[in-house]
Amino acid sequence: MDYIKTLLVQKPLKLDCGKTIKDYPIAYETYGQLNENKDNAILVFHALTGDQFVTGINPITQKDGWWSYAVGSNKAIDTNKFFVICANVIGGCMGSYGPSHKDSVTKKTLGTNFPVITINDMVNAQLNLLEFFNIEKLFSVVGGSMGGMQVLQFIANFPDKVETVIPIACTSSHSAQNIAFNELGRQAITADSKWQNGDYSNQNDNPNKGLAVARMAAHITYLSKKGLQEKFGRKLQERDDLKFGFDADFQIESYLRYQGSVFVDRFDANSYLYITRAMDYFDLAKQFEGNLSKAFSKTKAKFFVVSFTSDWLYPTQENKEIVIALNSVGADVGFVEINSDKGHDSFLLDVPDFLNALKNFLDKSYNKT
Amino acid sequence: MDYIKTLLVQKPLKLDCGKTIKDYPIAYETYGQLNENKDNAILVFHALTGDQFVTGINPITQKDGWWSYAVGSNKAIDTNKFFVICANVIGGCMGSYGPSHKDSVTKKTLGTNFPVITINDMVNAQLNLLEFFNIEKLFSVVGGSMGGMQVLQFIANFPDKVETVIPIACTSSHSAQNIAFNELGRQAITADSKWQNGDYSNQNDNPNKGLAVARMAAHITYLSKKGLQEKFGRKLQERDDLKFGFDADFQIESYLRYQGSVFVDRFDANSYLYITRAMDYFDLAKQFEGNLSKAFSKTKAKFFVVSFTSDWLYPTQENKEIVIALNSVGADVGFVEINSDKGHDSFLLDVPDFLNALKNFLDKSYNKT
Repeated sequence: MDYIKTLLVQKPLKLDCGKTIKDYPIAYETYGQLNENKDNAILVFHALTGDQFVTGINPITQKDGWWSYAVGSNKAIDTNKFFVICANVIGGCMGSYGPSHKDSVTKKTLGTNFPVITINDMVNAQLNLLEFFNIEKLFSVVGGSMGGMQVLQFIANFPDKVETVIPIACTSSHSAQNIAFNELGRQAITADSKWQNGDYSNQNDNPNKGLAVARMAAHITYLSKKGLQEKFGRKLQERDDLKFGFDADFQIESYLRYQGSVFVDRFDANSYLYITRAMDYFDLAKQFEGNLSKAFSKTKAKFFVVSFTSDWLYPTQENKEIVIALNSVGADVGFVEINSDKGHDSFLLDVPDFLNALKNFLDKSYNKT
Repeated sequence: MDYIKTLLVQKPLKLDCGKTIKDYPIAYETYGQLNENKDNAILVFHALTGDQFVTGINPITQKDGWWSYAVGSNKAIDTNKFFVICANVIGGCMGSYGPSHKDSVTKKTLGTNFPVITINDMVNAQLNLLEFFNIEKLFSVVGGSMGGMQVLQFIANFPDKVETVIPIACTSSHSAQNIAFNELGRQAITADSKWQNGDYSNQNDNPNKGLAVARMAAHITYLSKKGLQEKFGRKLQERDDLKFGFDADFQIESYLRYQGSVFVDRFDANSYLYITRAMDYFDLAKQFEGNLSKAFSKTKAKFFVVSFTSDWLYPTQENKEIVIALNSVGADVGFVEINSDKGHDSFLLDVPDFLNALKNFLDKSYNKT
């Protein structure tokens, strides 16, 4: 774990659950250079299974960072121009304080003794990075999916701390179907006898089978029906005909199994429980007396909301509700729905219309400041 | 098991996998009376987790039969008028030959020694019921979901054996997304260490946790996003606020857990594997040189295809493809898309527009014969 930059936060943080944490680590990564005026910083928030390694080679997985299409030299988020910061969320498993950390007294892995955290807790923890880098005001907060939820929570909490705000493919609160899919994932993990009430690490074990099933379930929701049909359809996996057994006859079966198997090598099952819980708990309007507009009434920031046509996890309609709330308080807001068959995952993939729109918004807004 | 009527089929049946079965049981139920002309019989096909107990009280579960809204005295399928037959599919677990049956020689439960069966095998097995009841020609074949697949396969196999054909909320072949969700269910079952390669019965065990997860996954696909939102939204389960734990805070979580827990009491995990496999293998066009129309070119039967607006498992478009194939061979076909927020499950529920349409089609067609 030589590669993980960590900020040890000594300031106490009162969590939504009522507990207070202090002396906790936030693992982060940066790309590009902070300029002298310190006005070119962009805080990127990652999604459920993301981490701080946004672009370039992830030193842990040895694969491309999760947003390599969007972040880098001359890319949409241009690291020649901007200073990009990304932190692993608390609750995560890539160095920030989470359930795989050890209790300082008992020296045992926390597991389900870790407190239940929220999206609000995540962004409050990350505010420490601004202080650490002496950044008064960010140029932008950007993120897709759960990253977008953090974007919305950040501007609601810190209306003066950022110039531009880019929530992508997200929602202001989890729908019943969203909660259902997350609960399915949690049930898959806790059904694995190796989960052992979350104490698996202390037993040198791992609920990998349950975690893989959870990942497969989620993965289906990240892709569109049409995209799956075009990519896989009923294509067979290295065979001329059906084998009349339970091996992976179809490519889609093989693909899902592969997605499950590689995921367990890089992710902690308890983190999956905690982070999905935070997503399900997210309800920004509820924090503002049921009125989503009030979350945005104090900010002068410029918003750019992005959705994708084939995203059925956080469909355009839910992104539009954010736009409507912004308009109703007279906020400066742009909105674009990008045509894509790639489903929710579109924001992570090479979707030129999206990447161009993101680049244009950032570059034009930055030139005006 | 005193209540289960069983036909022991001695005639050999060659399965698609190449194996031949004989002396196998088909469990069935009937409702209403077969008339003297024997022209009022309707063969109803059940869906993935259905069984032969269509209406009235299911003697095994003590709950209403799965199609109680549609079948009964003066209902859409009027048992005062029609003689309704329904058989448990082979591969099932309500008395028909399936993986929970014992090997006649070893006396051990078959488990995964049961052959992989197809929708074609299912309907070929059920043809024996016509012979048993001395029925030359059925008045109708009717079924929703996997029942609809059997309807399509039946008319393709036996074009002269039925007057009217009613496939409901189904498809002529499983899409990649359909296969993905079924594979997810299978992975959940086989991930359960108690599955023991399918040999759990011989070990006096049960992969109930895995089977419950599979059921939860499937259940989400049976309901529409809008329907879930209207019924559950973010309503809390018997509590005033979030509890910051992993119990069921939301009603939708509690509902899913309940659906999983009651399912395992009535269903066999291996049957779930076999029947989902049969659904994934279903590809009617492939059986007819890639031309779905050819499946219907030999029949004079009258078709009535039904879909539901909010069904995202087998959306209207896939039902329309059946209609298009029927039209292209000049078949007599009616089609209706029913407005409903209840998702795929609409065909099982009290959806008056659907039940009226079904009743009208059957009654008018019957009066003309």
